[in-house]
Amino acid sequence: MHSNKSGEMRQESDSLGPMEVPMDRYYGAQTMRCVLNFRIGGEEERMPRQIVQAIGILKKAAAETNQEFGLDPKLSTAISNAADDVISGKLYDEGHFPLPIWQAGSGTQSNMNTNEVIGNRAIEMLGGRVGSKDPIHPNDHVNMSQSSNDTFPSAIHIAVASGLNKELRPAITALRDSMQSKTNEWKDIIKIGRTHVQDSVPMTLGQEFSGYTQQLTNGLARIEAVLPRIYQLALGGTAVGTGLNCRRGFPEKCIKRIAQLTGLPFVVAPNFFEALASRDAMVEVHGALNVLAVSLMKIANDIRLMGSGPRCGLGEVHLPENEPGSSIMPGKVNPTQCEALTMICAQVMGNHVAVSVGGANGNFELNVFKPLIVSNVLRSIKLLTDGCRSFNLNCVKGIKPNKDKLASNVNQSLSLAPALCPNIGCDKTTQIVKSAHQNGTTVKEEALKAGITEKDYNEWVRVDKMLGPS
Amino acid sequence: MHSNKSGEMRQESDSLGPMEVPMDRYYGAQTMRCVLNFRIGGEEERMPRQIVQAIGILKKAAAETNQEFGLDPKLSTAISNAADDVISGKLYDEGHFPLPIWQAGSGTQSNMNTNEVIGNRAIEMLGGRVGSKDPIHPNDHVNMSQSSNDTFPSAIHIAVASGLNKELRPAITALRDSMQSKTNEWKDIIKIGRTHVQDSVPMTLGQEFSGYTQQLTNGLARIEAVLPRIYQLALGGTAVGTGLNCRRGFPEKCIKRIAQLTGLPFVVAPNFFEALASRDAMVEVHGALNVLAVSLMKIANDIRLMGSGPRCGLGEVHLPENEPGSSIMPGKVNPTQCEALTMICAQVMGNHVAVSVGGANGNFELNVFKPLIVSNVLRSIKLLTDGCRSFNLNCVKGIKPNKDKLASNVNQSLSLAPALCPNIGCDKTTQIVKSAHQNGTTVKEEALKAGITEKDYNEWVRVDKMLGPS
Amino acid sequence: MHSNKSGEMRQESDSLGPMEVPMDRYYGAQTMRCVLNFRIGGEEERMPRQIVQAIGILKKAAAETNQEFGLDPKLSTAISNAADDVISGKLYDEGHFPLPIWQAGSGTQSNMNTNEVIGNRAIEMLGGRVGSKDPIHPNDHVNMSQSSNDTFPSAIHIAVASGLNKELRPAITALRDSMQSKTNEWKDIIKIGRTHVQDSVPMTLGQEFSGYTQQLTNGLARIEAVLPRIYQLALGGTAVGTGLNCRRGFPEKCIKRIAQLTGLPFVVAPNFFEALASRDAMVEVHGALNVLAVSLMKIANDIRLMGSGPRCGLGEVHLPENEPGSSIMPGKVNPTQCEALTMICAQVMGNHVAVSVGGANGNFELNVFKPLIVSNVLRSIKLLTDGCRSFNLNCVKGIKPNKDKLASNVNQSLSLAPALCPNIGCDKTTQIVKSAHQNGTTVKEEALKAGITEKDYNEWVRVDKMLGPS
Amino acid sequence: MHSNKSGEMRQESDSLGPMEVPMDRYYGAQTMRCVLNFRIGGEEERMPRQIVQAIGILKKAAAETNQEFGLDPKLSTAISNAADDVISGKLYDEGHFPLPIWQAGSGTQSNMNTNEVIGNRAIEMLGGRVGSKDPIHPNDHVNMSQSSNDTFPSAIHIAVASGLNKELRPAITALRDSMQSKTNEWKDIIKIGRTHVQDSVPMTLGQEFSGYTQQLTNGLARIEAVLPRIYQLALGGTAVGTGLNCRRGFPEKCIKRIAQLTGLPFVVAPNFFEALASRDAMVEVHGALNVLAVSLMKIANDIRLMGSGPRCGLGEVHLPENEPGSSIMPGKVNPTQCEALTMICAQVMGNHVAVSVGGANGNFELNVFKPLIVSNVLRSIKLLTDGCRSFNLNCVKGIKPNKDKLASNVNQSLSLAPALCPNIGCDKTTQIVKSAHQNGTTVKEEALKAGITEKDYNEWVRVDKMLGPS
Repeated sequence: MHSNKSGEMRQESDSLGPMEVPMDRYYGAQTMRCVLNFRIGGEEERMPRQIVQAIGILKKAAAETNQEFGLDPKLSTAISNAADDVISGKLYDEGHFPLPIWQAGSGTQSNMNTNEVIGNRAIEMLGGRVGSKDPIHPNDHVNMSQSSNDTFPSAIHIAVASGLNKELRPAITALRDSMQSKTNEWKDIIKIGRTHVQDSVPMTLGQEFSGYTQQLTNGLARIEAVLPRIYQLALGGTAVGTGLNCRRGFPEKCIKRIAQLTGLPFVVAPNFFEALASRDAMVEVHGALNVLAVSLMKIANDIRLMGSGPRCGLGEVHLPENEPGSSIMPGKVNPTQCEALTMICAQVMGNHVAVSVGGANGNFELNVFKPLIVSNVLRSIKLLTDGCRSFNLNCVKGIKPNKDKLASNVNQSLSLAPALCPNIGCDKTTQIVKSAHQNGTTVKEEALKAGITEKDYNEWVRVDKMLGPS
Repeated sequence: MHSNKSGEMRQESDSLGPMEVPMDRYYGAQTMRCVLNFRIGGEEERMPRQIVQAIGILKKAAAETNQEFGLDPKLSTAISNAADDVISGKLYDEGHFPLPIWQAGSGTQSNMNTNEVIGNRAIEMLGGRVGSKDPIHPNDHVNMSQSSNDTFPSAIHIAVASGLNKELRPAITALRDSMQSKTNEWKDIIKIGRTHVQDSVPMTLGQEFSGYTQQLTNGLARIEAVLPRIYQLALGGTAVGTGLNCRRGFPEKCIKRIAQLTGLPFVVAPNFFEALASRDAMVEVHGALNVLAVSLMKIANDIRLMGSGPRCGLGEVHLPENEPGSSIMPGKVNPTQCEALTMICAQVMGNHVAVSVGGANGNFELNVFKPLIVSNVLRSIKLLTDGCRSFNLNCVKGIKPNKDKLASNVNQSLSLAPALCPNIGCDKTTQIVKSAHQNGTTVKEEALKAGITEKDYNEWVRVDKMLGPS
Repeated sequence: MHSNKSGEMRQESDSLGPMEVPMDRYYGAQTMRCVLNFRIGGEEERMPRQIVQAIGILKKAAAETNQEFGLDPKLSTAISNAADDVISGKLYDEGHFPLPIWQAGSGTQSNMNTNEVIGNRAIEMLGGRVGSKDPIHPNDHVNMSQSSNDTFPSAIHIAVASGLNKELRPAITALRDSMQSKTNEWKDIIKIGRTHVQDSVPMTLGQEFSGYTQQLTNGLARIEAVLPRIYQLALGGTAVGTGLNCRRGFPEKCIKRIAQLTGLPFVVAPNFFEALASRDAMVEVHGALNVLAVSLMKIANDIRLMGSGPRCGLGEVHLPENEPGSSIMPGKVNPTQCEALTMICAQVMGNHVAVSVGGANGNFELNVFKPLIVSNVLRSIKLLTDGCRSFNLNCVKGIKPNKDKLASNVNQSLSLAPALCPNIGCDKTTQIVKSAHQNGTTVKEEALKAGITEKDYNEWVRVDKMLGPS
Repeated sequence: MHSNKSGEMRQESDSLGPMEVPMDRYYGAQTMRCVLNFRIGGEEERMPRQIVQAIGILKKAAAETNQEFGLDPKLSTAISNAADDVISGKLYDEGHFPLPIWQAGSGTQSNMNTNEVIGNRAIEMLGGRVGSKDPIHPNDHVNMSQSSNDTFPSAIHIAVASGLNKELRPAITALRDSMQSKTNEWKDIIKIGRTHVQDSVPMTLGQEFSGYTQQLTNGLARIEAVLPRIYQLALGGTAVGTGLNCRRGFPEKCIKRIAQLTGLPFVVAPNFFEALASRDAMVEVHGALNVLAVSLMKIANDIRLMGSGPRCGLGEVHLPENEPGSSIMPGKVNPTQCEALTMICAQVMGNHVAVSVGGANGNFELNVFKPLIVSNVLRSIKLLTDGCRSFNLNCVKGIKPNKDKLASNVNQSLSLAPALCPNIGCDKTTQIVKSAHQNGTTVKEEALKAGITEKDYNEWVRVDKMLGPS
């Protein structure tokens, strides 16, 4: 994707000298230099699309704001229009952003890549010659009042805030709502509870799913709790955070425009030195993703174990049969959605360590693990979003209780016995349970043997009375 | 510590039969059984003191609440009094809580250990025979209206909320305040900024420390953000969360009493099934600790690099000389406080993975990685608390700027040159800098050579004008 | 434990000046200084016993070797004898090694602690005055030809090599042997296999345990594979690895003596700069521990799920009933040994990250995360050792197959059907299985309905023919 | 890439019924079903190319082996030829393998994808109708004597063994050789050593790089140490490891053919149950990658700190200037190759946790975290390979010592003083050093002041005598 088809090249230059760049690409000398210097990982290791789009948003807002500070409206408008093709993802998809994640740890080169692409695209829109830097210069105009040091962290926050709000929260909410539906729908379906994976007292299937619902509701609250620090943008913290060469008032105005473009309440960071030197807010947000992964792994594991069988497992629920589980054995429904989701959870738990190591290893005025950090955060958001959606649509919504098995489990269980205690005393009850355990019989059978009438038994042992406090 | 000195034993029993227990210990048969079955790790692997104390608080509150529900006031008072010796840590320190972290994953055995110890201690206070279960029974009275399943997670939240509020927050606040003092004190000390560990534009030492201050302020905000879910107690979620055998109203009253005893605003968990089956809130709180570790590692690394030297390092600050760094070389001050702190940070980052793995691996109605989880959370709180305190007292407070070196760095630096641009143009400026770089001279020397007067230079190149937006 | 009971103090001094130290302790001024400067974590955070013992071994060997290089035999012998009380653990247990893990990252202070303790103990043995440094000086004599920089990493390797060989390998071997016994014992007990936690084709319980056996055999091989690099000692790499002030020939002779004392084949490290600046070998050995944790978590999870029940789980095996699982429900045997072990595995997985972060963050000639690294490696070794032992003795050895359940599962299973294919064709077979699935009947019942004779069925469907390649 | 351009579809079917598949794709109904059910992550989350190629190798070897067991040579040859287009990567690049990593945890669907693609491609080669399953059936012929359960783990081992041997080992070796060259080249360049980031005694730059060389040499040894278990293939362990339906002798012959095709010494796994149920060997191999990441992070951090400057850093080496570091400041050479590499190291450390969590969470006869595990292992191999190459070519090879700075550091250093001790005594030496420290002078200046002649000083203080044992 990175090489042009015609093979034609043009010459561009930067402070280190001239470079040949493909004629059909908008990027210039700095990007090309970086393409050659960082041959790491190929197509699948490209700087994520969302971060490039976020830089595009920032460039558009900056150009429009710079107009208020004196930038020629013709240039400003051209930059803003060119940025639209970055924001839409079009120029990313067409190969104008070839750089890998594994570049300068500041993301400088992706900022320059965007400056070059927008600059040349805007020149083209204005009828100029691509590569001429005339009338639009990638540094002087596209990057005006900005530096990589404040631009790239701002783009990180824009991309992550968007992903959280527009992708992940709706996906979790939809899954949570399905869990809530099941909670309501199954509120009267009694099943055996399990602690230590051992039979415990009865509960309802709805109660079990109410726990999952709460986990996801908490997951949403955890994301909300981290947003305040994600909405803080480093923009204006040029140079090392001093704001050198940034016009007074520029950050506030530009960030206001970014807030309009994204619909998200971004503000100026309270301290630029923290905002450049640390990426703590990313470590924090990934912490919330990590809890979500932990919750989802628990839920998905429960569901696949409850669906185990068809004959020799727990068999309490039927999962949707999405693919052939076995050519010859109907009823073998492999819990593949649970498997995909738990694999995603493991990946997110791993990404979390990568993000933490990157966050801990900054030095002085600039954390230089930024592309690593943001690519992991965005990947985790994407995987959890798609994972929640797929799990919801292709698994949770289609789960059916296996009512026969649930009921027979409860009947077979020895855990109804406690209900006898108030009536015949706990010593006698224990005797009955021991007999049932030894003889492989039910509590009821042994109770009748012990002289309790069926009428008394049925009156005393009421599972529906065991589902809450007395 | 676990074995009595006299060697005398008494017999106690549980449902599996009689056990010999040391005469001078208050624990009974269940604890003893567990001592024998889990010979894992020795003294340093004991269930943490704080969790035992928290169970003590819970037992005290429960006894007093149970009195309202009919428990004989004599018994209730004795239990409450006996619990005081658990809450103070006295009985822990005297060896009555010998169980390791590595026991049942529900913490059941530590709950039973506490029931047995409080029971026997209360019997003793009432003049009864230790081991007789008369007039106080560990299960029927001390554990009344409770089960391990709701008791232990509640104790986890009590211990962790206390640690966060009473230990960690004050320690972070004190360190943050020292950083703030340095920020103010050094607001006019100019130094060279560094990005990519390379010389960048000037800034002040105060600005650098303002970033650290903000990181710690954020760290406090992150802890606050997780507290709402830590204040939710599982108490009342007996059995599998149904509340079976728990009296209506008991949880609310008992938790109110716990809130009084601790001074912390505990509430009943919104969903008991989540509160038993997941430990997500612990994973969440450790996420906040993980960010703090990440922040502190960054800060401590900066400080030890700024203090590197005495002759061949950056040498920008002097660290307090707490120990001999070298027998023969004065001025070699090893940054041992930074080293202790960064080691702690690495430990916390590791503990985070342990907690996450434990949180993700619950099944059905009960997470059985609880002792693992809580011991890591409490250890991280303890280490970060002590680490912050030690780092603050023995390092940060005593840091002195090396003003000569800071000033000479700024003068030597090539990064003052940008201030010439507005006056002589950037092309000429670049030429001057290049000469300085090649000749190993200062920018000023080359500027004068290039015909700029010293008066002009001093007027144009004003570092104090480079510390903020223009 | 750190403070003397009498409260009496004596004065010792180091290059920073005099210090009051407890009269009943052998340590001196440097240790005392460190006690005061590193108040981090209390008793349970002490530098591990094993590492202090290893330093003791090293000091003994060094003293004896130094005699060959001119050290007065009287002094050398006294040091060697004093070192014996360090090696036995006696002086550690008596509180002469109060320093925490969280000290200088080089372990310098624990090396000095040992020098001071051995020095004073040897002086005492020779009838001198404790604290006089006469006739034995902690630096000049006990630390002769050594520096902290080569001593502490050597002690790390000695302690870890001993732990691996004398603790962990025997514990894994014993567990593996139990697994092998079960493999043999149960080679003919047929059970249903499970993939995706769904019923699959039959296998034997012995085959299942043969997998666990192989995992542990591999675990042993993994430990063996890392030993060569653990046997390399940094000793002789004084200063920054140059060997400055170390006598030629000293390392070889001293290491030979260490090998005699430990029975382990230690050698001189091939490159001292690597041996001081990196702790890669520790990261490597913990990688082997991490795989072991992964293996054991899988095994313990399988076993607790196979033992789930008593009525509503898989119920394929009975686990030993070590504690009361429930006051009223016989047969509820909580898999507490599995829980303790899986918690240990999660801890080891977390420790691994701590070790890796510490290993990655060394700078220049000395890694200063050593106490962190070695304390995690030793803790993982200890927990895995004790965990394997406890799991073996209290769980694996006592597992009993639930033959009725295993057999009934196989009979109920639909997975015997493939055996019909060669006889009646796969289409017809599929039809029979579908009917069984829909009707909740067995394959046999449907086969007879479909006209197959019982004799044919029994001849064709031979589970024992399904356990290997045809 | 996944959708055909024409929009034309054909119908294929599997046991769940018919599916529309794109006319211009070779895959069939099962793959299509999976495409629809696992919409997770898009193009960049595809099952890695290398694993698909490895399945291709396995299918080719199986087809040729099956011919020996009776498969029609015409079919066998067609399958073998079709597999060649999988092995070359051609069919992957053309979009015939659209499935994501996040699918069934067994990799079943990628095995079926390959069966379908090879089947249809072979049919086409034989002039048949794509989608007809005639004369080649994806299950009966392409998958003959195999099951997903043994095929996919075998492919994992093939892909990883190839990556280790053909990619990573050469890349490490090349980097190691560059380090060795520097070691030799700079064996006489004296520099100041640093411990605790503080000035220590002198050493040579070559000695410093000899440590890096040794770390990489050890890294190679660590990879070699894990290979024996990677060469073990699960092939033949059909069903749950029993080998049911696999022809006797098939595994040995087929694996022999795989060994020929790859040039790697693959063997039959010693225990199929372990080989299916665990992925321990992957956790192990990633442990070796984790150590390599730890080593490289240390090395890259050292190098970027040594290159810090140009004026206010350590400035001991010059790094190649690959990109403009600053528009106006020549000599600001950002260590971007170090940054890319350390980011890769952090990613590998994170991937390691993902792999470990996946490995620990298998159940019973099949680990179902396989695509997660192998995708992380292959990504780590790829990133480390490319990272080592880029770091070697674009950084290490071009490093130049800054001889002036190195020498001036040594001269300025106080650490030469120990050389005076044998001549004037250590007390007097210490006095001289203290004066130098206080006055900001050199040791030499103070020595001369103290009455030592320059001739004596120069004779006594010989740095070249301080570089090894005396």
